[in-house]
Amino acid sequence: MTTTLDALFRPRSVAIIGASTDPMKIGGRPIAYLKSGGYAGRILPVNPNAAEVQGLPSAPTLDAVPGEVDLAIVAVPAAAVAPAIDACVRKQVRAVVLFSAGYAELGAEGRTAQEALVARCRAAGIRLLGPNALGLMNPGDGVYLTFSASLQNGPPRAGRVAVATQSGAVGTYSLTLLADRGAGISHLVTTGNEGDVDVAACIDWLADDPATGVILTYLEGARDGARLLAALEKCRAAGKPVVAMKVGTSEVGAAATQSHTGTLAGADAGYAAAFEAGGAWRAGSLAEAVDIAAACTAGRLPRGRRLGVITVSGGAGAFLADAAAAAGLEMPELPAEAQAAIRAVVAFAGPRNPVDSTAQIANDRTALGRMLEIMLRHGRFDALVGFLAFMGENPQRLADGLPAMERLRIAYPDTAFLFSMRAPPDVRAMLLERGIATFEEPLDAVRAARALAWLGEQQRESRPAAAPLPPAALPPGTLDEAACRALLGAAGVPFVPGEAVADADGACAAAGRLGWPVVLKVLSPDLAHKSEAGGVRLDLRDEAALRAAWDTMMAELRVKASGAAIAGALVSPMLRGGVETVLGMTRDPVFGPLIMFGLGGVFVEVFRDVGFRLAPLTRAEALRLIRSIRGFPLLDGARGRPKADLGAIADALVALSRFTETHPEVASVEVNPFIALPQGGLGVDAVILR
Amino acid sequence: MTTTLDALFRPRSVAIIGASTDPMKIGGRPIAYLKSGGYAGRILPVNPNAAEVQGLPSAPTLDAVPGEVDLAIVAVPAAAVAPAIDACVRKQVRAVVLFSAGYAELGAEGRTAQEALVARCRAAGIRLLGPNALGLMNPGDGVYLTFSASLQNGPPRAGRVAVATQSGAVGTYSLTLLADRGAGISHLVTTGNEGDVDVAACIDWLADDPATGVILTYLEGARDGARLLAALEKCRAAGKPVVAMKVGTSEVGAAATQSHTGTLAGADAGYAAAFEAGGAWRAGSLAEAVDIAAACTAGRLPRGRRLGVITVSGGAGAFLADAAAAAGLEMPELPAEAQAAIRAVVAFAGPRNPVDSTAQIANDRTALGRMLEIMLRHGRFDALVGFLAFMGENPQRLADGLPAMERLRIAYPDTAFLFSMRAPPDVRAMLLERGIATFEEPLDAVRAARALAWLGEQQRESRPAAAPLPPAALPPGTLDEAACRALLGAAGVPFVPGEAVADADGACAAAGRLGWPVVLKVLSPDLAHKSEAGGVRLDLRDEAALRAAWDTMMAELRVKASGAAIAGALVSPMLRGGVETVLGMTRDPVFGPLIMFGLGGVFVEVFRDVGFRLAPLTRAEALRLIRSIRGFPLLDGARGRPKADLGAIADALVALSRFTETHPEVASVEVNPFIALPQGGLGVDAVILR
Repeated sequence: MTTTLDALFRPRSVAIIGASTDPMKIGGRPIAYLKSGGYAGRILPVNPNAAEVQGLPSAPTLDAVPGEVDLAIVAVPAAAVAPAIDACVRKQVRAVVLFSAGYAELGAEGRTAQEALVARCRAAGIRLLGPNALGLMNPGDGVYLTFSASLQNGPPRAGRVAVATQSGAVGTYSLTLLADRGAGISHLVTTGNEGDVDVAACIDWLADDPATGVILTYLEGARDGARLLAALEKCRAAGKPVVAMKVGTSEVGAAATQSHTGTLAGADAGYAAAFEAGGAWRAGSLAEAVDIAAACTAGRLPRGRRLGVITVSGGAGAFLADAAAAAGLEMPELPAEAQAAIRAVVAFAGPRNPVDSTAQIANDRTALGRMLEIMLRHGRFDALVGFLAFMGENPQRLADGLPAMERLRIAYPDTAFLFSMRAPPDVRAMLLERGIATFEEPLDAVRAARALAWLGEQQRESRPAAAPLPPAALPPGTLDEAACRALLGAAGVPFVPGEAVADADGACAAAGRLGWPVVLKVLSPDLAHKSEAGGVRLDLRDEAALRAAWDTMMAELRVKASGAAIAGALVSPMLRGGVETVLGMTRDPVFGPLIMFGLGGVFVEVFRDVGFRLAPLTRAEALRLIRSIRGFPLLDGARGRPKADLGAIADALVALSRFTETHPEVASVEVNPFIALPQGGLGVDAVILR
Repeated sequence: MTTTLDALFRPRSVAIIGASTDPMKIGGRPIAYLKSGGYAGRILPVNPNAAEVQGLPSAPTLDAVPGEVDLAIVAVPAAAVAPAIDACVRKQVRAVVLFSAGYAELGAEGRTAQEALVARCRAAGIRLLGPNALGLMNPGDGVYLTFSASLQNGPPRAGRVAVATQSGAVGTYSLTLLADRGAGISHLVTTGNEGDVDVAACIDWLADDPATGVILTYLEGARDGARLLAALEKCRAAGKPVVAMKVGTSEVGAAATQSHTGTLAGADAGYAAAFEAGGAWRAGSLAEAVDIAAACTAGRLPRGRRLGVITVSGGAGAFLADAAAAAGLEMPELPAEAQAAIRAVVAFAGPRNPVDSTAQIANDRTALGRMLEIMLRHGRFDALVGFLAFMGENPQRLADGLPAMERLRIAYPDTAFLFSMRAPPDVRAMLLERGIATFEEPLDAVRAARALAWLGEQQRESRPAAAPLPPAALPPGTLDEAACRALLGAAGVPFVPGEAVADADGACAAAGRLGWPVVLKVLSPDLAHKSEAGGVRLDLRDEAALRAAWDTMMAELRVKASGAAIAGALVSPMLRGGVETVLGMTRDPVFGPLIMFGLGGVFVEVFRDVGFRLAPLTRAEALRLIRSIRGFPLLDGARGRPKADLGAIADALVALSRFTETHPEVASVEVNPFIALPQGGLGVDAVILR
């Protein structure tokens, strides 16, 4: 698995097993594309029935091909695939692209056949792209290892976006959307069934590729979460933003993916947490993904969220301002001096921010440039969004405005230029080369500003590699509440004090030490839901009440939970005030332990207002997790409430994360409730399952 | 205001005051556009310095123009506008289009000048479009009363979408987005400052216009909510969907609108409620608005939410299924018979729904049509979404698939056909004429399916015209809780029983009648927030507790609310269980009374989880309002809770609405909390402000 993918992405020679003399057939297309694309390496058709294929000398078998072969495309019917792979092994090729379908995507039988092929390749040190893959394009080197019909209209535009996708159709469709936006690609790689090479491996290679500036990826499922995360981290370290799409978030969607790719589409929470941890922007649509990937190639990522807006229409300015507010961007008003300067350019202009240039800029050829300059000089904007309507379709207006735009783009390299206008692809490409990203829909420019700001924030805070912690063993047997509290308490999760007692006398003595009123809770490893079984009594104010509660609780348990082993009870002080929260951990099949945080009660039960982050969790990540839930205002002093001690919650979450690391046998943890207080926070109950 | 807008939308003759011999100048463009657009009426340039303008005889003044003049365009500097309007009055023109800016959008002085112009036109029975308006286009009749530079590339495509917008730039930009989607316009009207003709008046006229099938509108603010609502209702009765955009939802956005148009951008809740009541789809972006307006012209609106999805890629199918689930659409699995039939067409197809045709349909020219037919015959789908990738760019694949599509479109007229593909505008227009709407972004097809389903639901349930209720007077003075409960109770809002008492003896007697435990609440018209002042005591279980509570409460009030008049206290039974909700009414400056519903406590205070509907409220609307809030699961039996009696809440909301109608002097009402119970519901406290 550690062999480089150089032979796949940049092969020096390409054999085509199943080469066709017809450039329109599956086995003919790669040859036609390699020839017309200007590939400088050797193109080596293999066809037992033709001495020449599309003007190139053909060999009857791969063994008969002269010299070394870097990469072989296998484009033969399913029955002929295994012998072709055997030939590749004999020839010591370094990479294979396998177009053929009919493997894991069809079920168990196909999966077995696929695994046999993969094992054969692995043993021989061959990297395999596919099966069921549309292949790869690298327009900068003229490498086209694909049968995609999309190339019949000519090669894709070369540029700095790399596209790594499981779905071939989504990949080629993305190319056309990128081209419309004036953006070109460094590579398109489609991984299909991912028998060997998966999207994570491609991202890992692309992180080192000098031709690639940003990576757009589309996933249906990942086999190995850690490798995907490591690849995202490598991109972050290389300063390359990643824009990710992941499908299968709904039940029907997940079913559709499984039936298609044969990979398990993991639960969405793990992917969401991985993109968050790896600093990848998650796009909700193809159009969003290509918009943002294209914009990433236009220059540096912004260093903040200050947004300047200029429009040729007050109405559009309001629309953009609404969207900016919803996206959490700041739109500071321009200083009075700047407003006066803008009014000096166009008397009726709206000068505050958004700036409304009015249609006057159609009559004054330098007005737009002068206004942009005033905005940039005074606004200290991290991004500048403009709605310039028909500018890109109007050669005169473009010629008028462009020199100022170019000059300002160079003078203000830390401000992203994101302009909405009508423009044909060649104009958009010309502008993108000059560092100006364009958008047809005005609101998409704001969406891009939001995404670039977030990506910029991510670049500035990489996730520190955590030193692995030594594993520790759990005590044997099922763990009752007292044992769970002890374990987690030792790991650093604070709990309300509690004493395990055997009888009512012991309870009264403990209450005297802990302070009245108290809570009484049965201790039983068999009762995960103590309340429902009648095993919890609250707010006991004196000995009489505590003794009465002990008797009725034990009597009720004998009825409601007759089979449960009762190890006594836990006495704790009754807590008042604070906000009920829940801390938890669950293991994702792809990404391993996920740390959960949410508000308690109906918020977690009914509204599922919880967030997840990957473990190990840093304190900064824990604080972001706490702030990410919808109910955060309840912890932040909403409506005159006391503010909760966020640092204490974060510390408890980090402690939980460390506990998870050191106890690989733990399947899940829930501290519910964890009472967040103005100073500190205290767990009240805990469950650990293995 | 009742004069028809015929003279504006379809004038028989057009005079241009300020006509220019230069077809590129503001005063020259309408003449050039009318001439090249094939306008059949008389074009009458007015220019004191030229006998001929752009090949047409010119008059030195409007008075000198021979014959009647239906409409005059005023394209002169601000100082010359008033004399031009005077000339229009003398000439008895029926409508004026006023391009000139410099009026209400600039502030108080401009507003005064604008009002004088409007008054002058009104007195003479002239309808005025503008000032500060880009004007109007009606390509079907060749009417171009605009200086928009967008026409310099030729006239817009004629079609069935009417665009009515305050912003000229947004309007013309929308045209180009519509044209990209193959959709044409019946009219574009831009209303600018709306001195007289506003968007509502235009929608009202368009509802009757046979050339118009759907109306796309963009609002910054409405002057008269009732007229806007009536226009929306008229469209609904005429079977014409309305797609609406309203900007100014954020603080900065609202400020940007106000500074631009000089109209007040009302609070968003009123607009949201008005679009809901009038059955208008509210679009979040220009692209969404034009997508949905274009799709509305493709055929009947769906009658349900059953969605069929077919794609050339399993990955895209999962993407679409995720989006459908998030949009609340159903994706029923195809019956086994249909799945077998699909597998008989393409062996490796994903047959369930989404159907994955696989790339095989590129090799089998009839496969797509046969699969579509199987889906339609067995799926009873209300909408069919397809991701067909490059079909629209590939003449051969288009020729292969089109005959089946056309035949199926006719055979299944109640199923919307919404296909995502790459296609040039002329192909999209050809498909749209055949009833097939196209989308570049696959997810936008799902968004359209959602919008069309909603619009179809709206068409089937028009809002009944409510007979006005006779007004009733409120008792004089500030109303304490007992008075509020009595008024609302008489109107039909049920309350927990309560007795007003003057002293502790009276309280104990009342508690004996009402049943223990009880709640004690101070009665004071001066204390809107009784709890905060210490004026509420809960859960009093016996006489001793009640008497003690009376004494301490009154003592505390003497300190905390020393100035308040105390009229005694209210004794009520203590309610247990149920869900705390809030019913309310507030008056919107544009749309009048809005009825509010939400969950109580932190849900209303912190999360603002409330919905608003216009009054008068029907029972069906009340039920939809209840279901619309995020917290609805708490009323609907989430996690084993008892279900609340939704009908009882709806009845209380309708009663509140009727109370609002009959008491126009009431400014706001809040019944907080209103306890929703498994059977019935009871208000606990009420405040009425006038």
